[in-house]
Amino acid sequence: MTDMRMSPNLALNQLVAERQAAGESLVHLAFGESRLPPFEPLVTKLTEGARRNGYGPVAGGPAVLAAGAGYFERRGLPTAPEQIVVAPGSKPLLMAINLVVPGDVLLPRPAWNTYVPQAQLAGKKAIAVPIPPECGGVPDPRVLREHIAAARLLGHDPRIIVLTLPDNPTGTTVSPEMVHELCGIAEEEGLLIVSDEIYRDVLHDPGHPFLSPAEIAPERTIVATGLSKSMSLGGWRIGMARFPEGPWGEWIRDGVASAASEVWSTLAQPMQEVAEYVFAEPPEVRERMAAAARLHGLVAAEVYRMCVAAGADCRPPTGAFYVYPDFGPLREKLTGYGVTDSPTLARSILDRFGVVVLAGHHLGDDWNALRFKMATSMLYGATHELQQETLEATDPVSLPHVRGQLDRIEESLMRLTE
Amino acid sequence: MTDMRMSPNLALNQLVAERQAAGESLVHLAFGESRLPPFEPLVTKLTEGARRNGYGPVAGGPAVLAAGAGYFERRGLPTAPEQIVVAPGSKPLLMAINLVVPGDVLLPRPAWNTYVPQAQLAGKKAIAVPIPPECGGVPDPRVLREHIAAARLLGHDPRIIVLTLPDNPTGTTVSPEMVHELCGIAEEEGLLIVSDEIYRDVLHDPGHPFLSPAEIAPERTIVATGLSKSMSLGGWRIGMARFPEGPWGEWIRDGVASAASEVWSTLAQPMQEVAEYVFAEPPEVRERMAAAARLHGLVAAEVYRMCVAAGADCRPPTGAFYVYPDFGPLREKLTGYGVTDSPTLARSILDRFGVVVLAGHHLGDDWNALRFKMATSMLYGATHELQQETLEATDPVSLPHVRGQLDRIEESLMRLTE
Repeated sequence: MTDMRMSPNLALNQLVAERQAAGESLVHLAFGESRLPPFEPLVTKLTEGARRNGYGPVAGGPAVLAAGAGYFERRGLPTAPEQIVVAPGSKPLLMAINLVVPGDVLLPRPAWNTYVPQAQLAGKKAIAVPIPPECGGVPDPRVLREHIAAARLLGHDPRIIVLTLPDNPTGTTVSPEMVHELCGIAEEEGLLIVSDEIYRDVLHDPGHPFLSPAEIAPERTIVATGLSKSMSLGGWRIGMARFPEGPWGEWIRDGVASAASEVWSTLAQPMQEVAEYVFAEPPEVRERMAAAARLHGLVAAEVYRMCVAAGADCRPPTGAFYVYPDFGPLREKLTGYGVTDSPTLARSILDRFGVVVLAGHHLGDDWNALRFKMATSMLYGATHELQQETLEATDPVSLPHVRGQLDRIEESLMRLTE
Repeated sequence: MTDMRMSPNLALNQLVAERQAAGESLVHLAFGESRLPPFEPLVTKLTEGARRNGYGPVAGGPAVLAAGAGYFERRGLPTAPEQIVVAPGSKPLLMAINLVVPGDVLLPRPAWNTYVPQAQLAGKKAIAVPIPPECGGVPDPRVLREHIAAARLLGHDPRIIVLTLPDNPTGTTVSPEMVHELCGIAEEEGLLIVSDEIYRDVLHDPGHPFLSPAEIAPERTIVATGLSKSMSLGGWRIGMARFPEGPWGEWIRDGVASAASEVWSTLAQPMQEVAEYVFAEPPEVRERMAAAARLHGLVAAEVYRMCVAAGADCRPPTGAFYVYPDFGPLREKLTGYGVTDSPTLARSILDRFGVVVLAGHHLGDDWNALRFKMATSMLYGATHELQQETLEATDPVSLPHVRGQLDRIEESLMRLTE
């Protein structure tokens, strides 16, 4: 029997919607949604695909698979269409990998809150390894080997390692050097690498160094991605995975396609039309992705600045749209406000200031640590019109509807210990 | 490690597409797709929903849940919106039930080919119980108790029973009397009933008696449905489940929503717009469903007639779009053609006549039985134009493009033993 609660970010999102509907004024930073309008050409593509009502091939039609292969080719990964599977989001693909590939799962700690429950649903042990001081999204390579050894001593069987590049929740990106180091360990230990690159097209600086483990360890790396983050399409549910070339990759890919055929059949055909268009990356798509990434970077940098000014430790964000401060340096002062751990910190910020953050323990972090995640992509405005204005602004953090919320966050963080 | 093959119907569908693309002329009856054009107002709804790009609530937005509740209310089941969950197809919902509810699964034999792999993916034992002579879709109540007892003696823990009303693969509908009998056994044995009613709106005669187990055993019955079959929307992936009122139902519903939040997030928002419209059942939707059900009935009846004329035993179809003949009476003659079991029978029909059927053993039936499934909904024409003409025809089985394939099927069945 699996006794599950709803994914905490989705649960919190529903709670906030209810409290806002009841008239409460909240600054909601606890949900990883890129709150921007749908890109208009995608609406056209969806309509154009609407007459595709047959099931079609499980992995995706030939056109979307070719487009997906091209997407990876342009990122330095030679890819045949047979290596691609599309699905209703990257979540079902990650779940299918959990169901198909044997063994337990090594995760960074903290990590996106869905990895652990998926492993549990598949009957796997999730083995959390602390992230390094430099960045999130990866187990610290300096302690990874000893965690693997300890897990084996305890009777677990770690065979999969999940990396998040760029990372949710820290908004940081692992260095190429550390990718090399992790791939070396994966090879020595015989691990399959699942590289969750759903934020790959949300690097704040397009020149920021990015190396996929699939470039270093191509035979053992699955790359997962999707359009929820880069194209603000969470509600459309479009995901994709690239499986390794060679027998291991083919075996897993066939298993995932089998699971897909039993669990979700295929990505909805009209959505395949959208995916084909986006993964082909015509200039207007690239421009839109770049504009969104720039916006995410500007707003995340502003909130990062506020965290540091308030006295928190924080890794500077370089990708995605998250800031993950550590208020440990203020622990003594915070104790006076009844704040002693992750739940009381998040609760205090909500109750005192109406700012909703996702407590670090929901992401697998230490219960006692004073850390939380803020999704800064929630600050672009309540309507599609305001969001579009924010996207197009030269200086989005100066727009009144953005600035007002930023000021409230700043004041909340400064007053935490006052 | 799960060693899986692709769902045999989807695998066969891909094989047929490849052989047809290579120029081979096949009559493809091995895929349960309702081959009709999308209903035009749904294309409009999808476009209208296209600007909904946020994630939204996991179970579905308030409007689609209310529409889903209304759908069941009109079928004699008082339903609160909180009892409804929508998803990308009914498959993920059935899988989530398997993941959330403990215990093993009792299935009719034969049954839809996805139930067994789903149970296996969830680490459950699938316990197949023969269907009665009267109909498919249900374990024969006369032998169900002894199968449960035997399973328990073997150390299994049957706690879920799956019923398919109307049935895939037999195209038949269980009688209200037998539903009462099965609900009684479920109550005595403490079983959860999963009633797969995806073909409920595909009863050939709208006056045919239909009783859902949810009317008799409301506290222990989950009803699953979707729009793939009744509205010919397989490629759009829209499913829905209704959970029981009361603590048991709420516990399962919450667990399924939790699994949903980790595995697929939600049904794509534009699809929720479509689902809301269809589940509200405006007159034009009801007309379209009725027209499709009439067509399915006429064509299935024609193929049924041919099977009986060829000497097969067959239950007369009353719902869905399947015919499931038993060529056991011709076993002696068939042996002369190298046909001795389920695989050789299907293979012989494919090789000698180019008619593609789904062999019974793929549906869990006896390997040695001479049975197969024919999906007669594949006979309406290769283009949306021909399919629309077929849907509107007073006498669809006389249309040349339908008749041509029917004649080929008839000739194949008659010549099986010649």
